[in-house]
This record gives sequence, structure tokens and C-alpha cells, in this order.
Amino acid sequence: MQRILSTELHAHEKQTVTVAGWVHRRRLLKSVAFVIVRDAGGFSQVVVTEPGVRALVETLPEETVVEVTATVTANAAAPSGVELTDPSVRVSSRAPGVPLPFELHRPTLSATMATQLDHAALALRHPSRAAALRVAAAATAGFRDALDRERFVEIHTPKIVGTATESGATVFALDYFGRPAYLAQSPQFYKQLMVGVFERVYEVGPVFRAEPHDTSRHLAQYTSLDAEMGFVADHRDVMATLTRVVAGMTATVADRTGAEVPPVPAQIPSVHFAEALRIAGAPPDEPDLAPAHERAIGDWARREHGSDFVFVTGYPMAKRPFYTHPQPSDPRWSNSFDLLFRGQELVTGGQRLHRYEDYLAVVPDPEPLAGYLEAFRYGMPPHGGFAIGLERFVARLTGAANVREATAFPRDLHRVTP
Amino acid sequence: MQRILSTELHAHEKQTVTVAGWVHRRRLLKSVAFVIVRDAGGFSQVVVTEPGVRALVETLPEETVVEVTATVTANAAAPSGVELTDPSVRVSSRAPGVPLPFELHRPTLSATMATQLDHAALALRHPSRAAALRVAAAATAGFRDALDRERFVEIHTPKIVGTATESGATVFALDYFGRPAYLAQSPQFYKQLMVGVFERVYEVGPVFRAEPHDTSRHLAQYTSLDAEMGFVADHRDVMATLTRVVAGMTATVADRTGAEVPPVPAQIPSVHFAEALRIAGAPPDEPDLAPAHERAIGDWARREHGSDFVFVTGYPMAKRPFYTHPQPSDPRWSNSFDLLFRGQELVTGGQRLHRYEDYLAVVPDPEPLAGYLEAFRYGMPPHGGFAIGLERFVARLTGAANVREATAFPRDLHRVTP
Repeated sequence: MQRILSTELHAHEKQTVTVAGWVHRRRLLKSVAFVIVRDAGGFSQVVVTEPGVRALVETLPEETVVEVTATVTANAAAPSGVELTDPSVRVSSRAPGVPLPFELHRPTLSATMATQLDHAALALRHPSRAAALRVAAAATAGFRDALDRERFVEIHTPKIVGTATESGATVFALDYFGRPAYLAQSPQFYKQLMVGVFERVYEVGPVFRAEPHDTSRHLAQYTSLDAEMGFVADHRDVMATLTRVVAGMTATVADRTGAEVPPVPAQIPSVHFAEALRIAGAPPDEPDLAPAHERAIGDWARREHGSDFVFVTGYPMAKRPFYTHPQPSDPRWSNSFDLLFRGQELVTGGQRLHRYEDYLAVVPDPEPLAGYLEAFRYGMPPHGGFAIGLERFVARLTGAANVREATAFPRDLHRVTP
Repeated sequence: MQRILSTELHAHEKQTVTVAGWVHRRRLLKSVAFVIVRDAGGFSQVVVTEPGVRALVETLPEETVVEVTATVTANAAAPSGVELTDPSVRVSSRAPGVPLPFELHRPTLSATMATQLDHAALALRHPSRAAALRVAAAATAGFRDALDRERFVEIHTPKIVGTATESGATVFALDYFGRPAYLAQSPQFYKQLMVGVFERVYEVGPVFRAEPHDTSRHLAQYTSLDAEMGFVADHRDVMATLTRVVAGMTATVADRTGAEVPPVPAQIPSVHFAEALRIAGAPPDEPDLAPAHERAIGDWARREHGSDFVFVTGYPMAKRPFYTHPQPSDPRWSNSFDLLFRGQELVTGGQRLHRYEDYLAVVPDPEPLAGYLEAFRYGMPPHGGFAIGLERFVARLTGAANVREATAFPRDLHRVTP
């Protein structure tokens, strides 16, 4: 018999159907047993009264995979308004892993993050953990759809690179056929090169940071949503695209998962770094925004503009990477930006240098960057882009306290398995 | 003035417009100069007669980025039926990289593959190279769309793994915060674990193979299109999904790029390994198919079934990975398959073991696989999946002789830059 999902039961009232999934919970009462079967759609309540079936059900540990053929019966008291009665149960594969290291059927996982990560194959089956990963999938789809609509082309770039020049301190080194090589900490150089080919490009892929930080915000591998676009007037064109992309991401998340998402204004408020310092009450010579400053600017945006989002532009050149384009009217500042969401940095981006001679003026040693700089020798348009850390984006959207909750199998200072 | 693309010119006849792009080619005749400007859409022919503009154009090396404001004028002899007359030309960024290492304006790139790869930032601007990457982007989009329609969920899994157990000989080793770790050669284990969470999952991501093969088919990093699905009867359910996925990929390639694609039969012909050996005239105890055998089977499928595609099923267990599900009727064979396209392997897949005890029976040392095997301790449904190597798929579809032509920045035995 064709299997249906728990979400489809209501359309089959009084019919005999087959559902399949995991034994999420059993409640063995005196005259009746309830088995909650979990599948990709949700839950089915199976009502067992027949002694033979009950005897079987009593032997089934939680997480056993079963196929249940039964009648769909209305019951206003059941979780979804219907339940499965008069079932026959077939065991598809037994779970010999009992007792489970933690209970999956509680509304929230009570196990520590470390225990959850040790048993990721089980913990991710909890609806709350799975939901965060569904938000990640939807956000990624929304990112791509928004850029596809604006004729961006998807690219795939090397994750193994020959030189550790973008920022030498934080890369993983590896043995590449007997030579030293490094894991890419971003697709920055490659996406810029590809502006010379497609004008507008994006990439969804892993990036690697060997930063020895053991915090709730750092991962040694995360998924970077990168975009880069040519023929921009300056960074404001990039910000306009990013605004549409973030709106597309939140819309897709809402549409696919039903999660609550913040409204994204068509015009996100924007404040220059110098003004941001004043708003935050910071000294005017501060070189960067501290977390408390970002919170103050987030509060200001909500208060003055009714927006959860706010752009800060013009960060001091001294604090931005070498490829950052200066602000033409005052080269102490840059044509770069951060997008803050509820007072925390969500996205970083900006306009890049596009003239070969401008790169030669800021790069101390062009030799290791030859393959990158070559693109500028052959003519590159004014361009800029941005990078969104997927896990941080999802954590902020879902309110997760730890970025690891938005990652299936996180890699950090202490963890390289499972 | 708002910039338009070369492809939009015909809709603006007799109007003044601005295009922007790269100086692809100049032809300086006595009384007139032609400048071909390349943009993401294609080419615009700019006709220069005014002496001041001509003097400027004469100083512009190829690949200079320009903005041209001019009148759209019909000319049946021009490449697209229109050309740009009475232009003003603004230099956006000059190309100091002349002379170019090879000419971009020829119909095909005459430079050797090595020279192209050395100057990837330039070579990829050639329409033929860019076209292959557009096919790759479209194929990837088609892969995702086909699986999204069947409620697969996109996942992102670790590329750094703690053990090199899937096949120890071909992994890259790296230093992970002072401990040894390895680059993932496939998301196989992780996508299986995630069947326990979402039932159906896919991933598009890089995989890494340290195989010391210097051939036209091998890359040290390639993009793997992976899918895995639970609650299958056996490998034939996976083959049916794969058939729809390949059809979706080719349809999207045709739709987005105009490339010619082979028809994908609704029911791809399928032949068991034992029968395939007979068709290929190979001895019945051959453990695997040699390239000549695959060609013979491809010829047979075309001749007997009019199909460019053919499944071979039932490969000997001895030649498949440990997680392969045996053929229940005869456990020398497996519930695995290869999909051949025009006589070459395109996709590999199959049903996997799903019972914990079956894994214990085939894994000599469960300890390094503990995080993987745990999923089976908690109950896993019958499942299977497949993996498509994106670059090989694109090379076969476009007829490229070398898989490097389907890769922006290939990594191989000798190359880790640019």
C-alpha cells in the first residue's frame, strides 16, 4: 500500500492508509496503548487495543522504524483531529540503541549542547533541532532565488588554496600532494575574478576559520552565502541588492517553514560610521563598533525608524580588508557596510577596489596574489558584494543562543566528530 | 543613464542607450572603427566615426572596461541586427595587462589547457568557457528544483572529518587545532544520518580526493550533487527519483542556456550486471565493467532502446562500498547501480544497509565509525541515494574532452593556484 505522510491523514478520513516513521513515544495504558509515529511531516497517533498488536508494541523501543496500516478516524481530542485505529504494525528496523541518551519526545531537548553534539544523529531528530535546519534550507533557497531573479550566476570555487594571504593567522594548513596548501577562509578573491566573467555571481559553500575561539558564535566551518556584482555606482547599489536578498530569504523562510520573520523595510535605514559612534555615545576616534555600540544603534533604528535592520556604512579603512574601496570624499572612511539585525552584525559587504594600480598601491607583496591581481590587469568594472554567515543568520532569526543549534554537525575548537 | 544589456538593444531601436562591458575586439578601418563590447548578455557592435572618439578608442587595450552611450540603429549586417552609432565612450577601468597571453575574440581558445588555467581570470571570459560554467549553474539549479519538488531538504555537512575510514588511501590530511583530521571525500555518512531527520535530503558541495591521477577525468576537488532518501522498497525507487532528477537537470540546462540536451526517457532501460557482461562480451566472472564494456552497453542501449542513458544494476558486492545493500535473492550481487550516459558512467548509487546489526557484520572496527553507526542504533528506514559529479556531468553534456573545461579553477595533482 502506498505510504502517506502524517500531514495527509486528514484527507483520508475513514479510509485505510499506511504511514511509516519512527516510534516517537508510547503510552501503555490499561485498556489501550497509544503510539506516536514521527515522520518528515509530523506525528500520527496510533490507537492500539488488539492484544496481539499491543504485545508487539510493548516490545518496540523508541526510534524503531515501523509501518502502520490502519483506519483514519476523527477524534477531536487527537493532536491533529484524526487518529489511526485498528492498526496492523510492521517493524521495518528495530532500534537497538536503548536506552536513549536523552528523551526525544519532550517539547525541548534537556540534554546539554555537548551531549546533543555527541549524539547528533539522535538529537537532530528532535523537532526543534530539525526546524532550525529547515529554516537554514529555506533561507538558502531564498538567497539563491532572489539572486537568480537579478541574473546572478552560481559559481563553485576552490576550497583548497595555495597561499594563506587573505588573513594568514586563521587558516587550516594541509598537505597537498606533498606541498603546503590551505583551506579557503572565504571565496572573496574568486568571486571577484568571476565578476570579470558573469558580472554577477553567487556561491553557497563552506568556509574554514582556524580561529581558536571557543564561543557560542564561532564555528571552524560554516556556510557562507556570498554574492558579488559588477557595474555598481558604489556600495549603495550592493546594499540595495542585499536588502532584496534578505527580504527574499525571510519570505522564503516564512513560506516554507511558517517561522515568524521580521519585516524587511524596502529601504533599510542607514547611518554612517561617524554618526553611528555619536548615536552609540562612543568617542569619535573609536576605530570599530563594540557589541554595546551595535546594540545602541539597533535600539536607535527601532526607535527612530521602526526597523529591526539598520545599515552602518563608511567603516574606517584601517579596519577593513585591503581590497576595500575608500570613500571618495574622505579616504579615511570606506565604501563598506555592515547590516545589523536587532543590534548584531548580520552581513558584511562593500565596494571593492577595481583598478590594478590601486591594488599595487595597497598590496605589499603582489607575488603570492598574482592569480588574483591578474583579473585587474585585464580590466574589471567597479564592483562590490557581501557575505552572509548562514548559521548566524539562522540563529538570529530563530533566537537560538548558540550558533551550533543552527548547524547539523558543527566543527569547533574541540570537535571534529561526528 | 540606466545601463542596459546587449541583449536588450533590439527593444530600444532609435533610442539613446548606455551599455557597459569589456572591449572584446577593435577593428580600426580607414574611415570607421568598430568596437565590439562584451557584457554578460553577449556583444554590442559600436560604430565609431567621430575623430575624437576614434582617437580615444585607438588607445584602449582589449579588456578595458568602457561605458558607451549611443544610438541604437538597425543594421541587418550587424551581428544582432542592430548596432550602436554616434557613441560617446567613457573608460571605466583600463586594462594594463597587454599584450594578452592569448586572444579572446577568436571563436575558440587556441591556448593550451595549461596556459588557460594559468590565466584563468582571462580564459574564463571566453564565451565557450563561460558557457560551460553556465551549464554547470543550470544543471545544479535543475538538480535542486527536481528534489525540492519531491520534498527533499537541503543540508550542509562537514568537510573536515576526524577519521579517514570511508576509503583511507585517497584523503587529504590537515592539522586541525593540533590534531590530525581529513577532508571529506563525500558526504555519504552524513547524508545517511540525515535520512533519520528529514527522510529525504540533498547536498551540493565540494568533495576532495587525493588520488594521484593526472588524467582528463580527475580533479582533487569537485562538486558533488548528493541525494539520499528513506522508506524505499529497494534501489529501484532511487533509480526512479534519479531519472526525474536527470530529466530536470537537462531541462533546466536547455531552458536557461539553450544548450542541446539528450532526451531522458521516462523509463531509462536497465540491465543487470550479469547480463551487461554478456552484452559486452566479457567473461562472466569479471568483477567490474571496463571502459570498453561500458561503451558496448551504451551502444546496445542506443541500438535496442534508442536511449543515450542506461542503468546497470546489481554490481558485485565485492566491488561496492561496505554500506551497500546486497541483492536479497543472491547476496553476491548488490542493490546498487550505475547510470551510464553514452557509454560512460555518469552517476553511482544504490540502496544502503539500514540495520545496525548488518553494519556490525561488515565493519571490522566500529570504533572510528561510532558517530555514523549510532544513527542505525536509533532506527533507520530502508534508504538509498546517489551522487552526481557536477563537472563530469557538464563535460559529458557539452562534449568537453577535459573535465577541467567544466571547472572555473580546477585543483589537480599539479595545480593549487589560481
